[in-house]
Amino acid sequence: MAHAAEMLETAPRAPMLAREALARCIDACYDCAQTCTACADACLGEESVGELARCIALDLDCADLCTATGAVLSRQVTAGEPWLWALIEACAEACASCAAECERHAGMHEHCRVCAEVCRTCEKRCREVQLLAAA
Amino acid sequence: MAHAAEMLETAPRAPMLAREALARCIDACYDCAQTCTACADACLGEESVGELARCIALDLDCADLCTATGAVLSRQVTAGEPWLWALIEACAEACASCAAECERHAGMHEHCRVCAEVCRTCEKRCREVQLLAAA
Amino acid sequence: MAHAAEMLETAPRAPMLAREALARCIDACYDCAQTCTACADACLGEESVGELARCIALDLDCADLCTATGAVLSRQVTAGEPWLWALIEACAEACASCAAECERHAGMHEHCRVCAEVCRTCEKRCREVQLLAAA
Amino acid sequence: MAHAAEMLETAPRAPMLAREALARCIDACYDCAQTCTACADACLGEESVGELARCIALDLDCADLCTATGAVLSRQVTAGEPWLWALIEACAEACASCAAECERHAGMHEHCRVCAEVCRTCEKRCREVQLLAAA
Repeated sequence: MAHAAEMLETAPRAPMLAREALARCIDACYDCAQTCTACADACLGEESVGELARCIALDLDCADLCTATGAVLSRQVTAGEPWLWALIEACAEACASCAAECERHAGMHEHCRVCAEVCRTCEKRCREVQLLAAA
Repeated sequence: MAHAAEMLETAPRAPMLAREALARCIDACYDCAQTCTACADACLGEESVGELARCIALDLDCADLCTATGAVLSRQVTAGEPWLWALIEACAEACASCAAECERHAGMHEHCRVCAEVCRTCEKRCREVQLLAAA
Repeated sequence: MAHAAEMLETAPRAPMLAREALARCIDACYDCAQTCTACADACLGEESVGELARCIALDLDCADLCTATGAVLSRQVTAGEPWLWALIEACAEACASCAAECERHAGMHEHCRVCAEVCRTCEKRCREVQLLAAA
Repeated sequence: MAHAAEMLETAPRAPMLAREALARCIDACYDCAQTCTACADACLGEESVGELARCIALDLDCADLCTATGAVLSRQVTAGEPWLWALIEACAEACASCAAECERHAGMHEHCRVCAEVCRTCEKRCREVQLLAAA
């Protein structure tokens, strides 16, 4: 349903990175931004919100990182910029932090279980892009 | 692949709007934000960029509107806010404007053709949410 | 310290709206986006976070609206788009909602008092832009 | 006029970093996000837009990075997260790249001259936060 792959195929410049891995990472970033935004809101609606403050704040940070990373990776005109790797590293680590916190609440809250999985997928997609670039 | 429906199902509060239509609209907003960001970049990479300035600016506006609308619709704690309808109206109209401009370039640029379709889908999903709310 | 006025003066196209009111509104949107983001976080750090869930969610909505509105108003290439007015209306009303909620907690939490004032200023700046356009 | 310092003072938790340097960095990020958004639009309005494609794309990347960094730095609940430093590094370097490109056009376009200065200031504010953390 998402269109990152089709947009990369129709762009005037071929991406520097392998197109499939890049498209999967972009899709994962937008999916993770939405899921973390929804998880923060679901946590806010729980009676035990007092125990979920750190989870909510990490959700919000992770959503901000994934939104920025998904947009930057969607641009091929600036694809060779060296600071891109620090951004992908920050995004992968923010996803890992958010996943670890959500996993602590996954037995109690289904939204945290889903969010943890989506964060782990996004972390993995970022790592795949890093590996390709290092190859 | 996107998780808006699953996040709405696992949230502590049932959404005010029909869950399926709301999930489809959220997914369409995030998809449109990514596609418009990529289309702006693809236009910037074309030799005929001078003729695409308005298309690029509308892509950027539409991406900003869709990002905000997708995030706001993902929150159920504030689902009853009356200003939500002005936001959905602005989002639907920005999608329509961006689609109309991209359609002018669709014969020449495949990325504009794809982007126009994604914008039309997002416009439609916003209109479906408006209709449900009016019912 | 902010540069919206200087950027409007150096742009190749004169803005459709009175430059001073537009610059003040753009600055107010970015200021309100930051303040609401900080207020949501400050509320999350309070022991009484359970009573602040609606305040936090409105802070997040208001920050999203102000970020999108500030960016869209910064673009002159698409300044005549009709959906702009629905966006400004949504932004003004989201600021008013967030201000009203923060005002309820202003006696207890200084961050809510400051945030309510910043939201009221942003609402006012949006209304000034609307009045100019109607004149 | 911006309120980052006042919000840090009224937050329930003292920031991990020196409050003044942190507030200055947050303000610089939001100012840079607005200025880069406006510079991209001003470049799009120039007749020589074909020569400004890279400048526009870097403006957009820099605006995305500054928006995310400004929001993340505004949160004290997650202030100790280790990935924060990769994000600040990416932001500082994106500001430096955007400044270098804008400086190439500063003699011709006043908006690029202003934008280069604002990017350099934001880069410097990020470096000050890094130095404080290392001390």
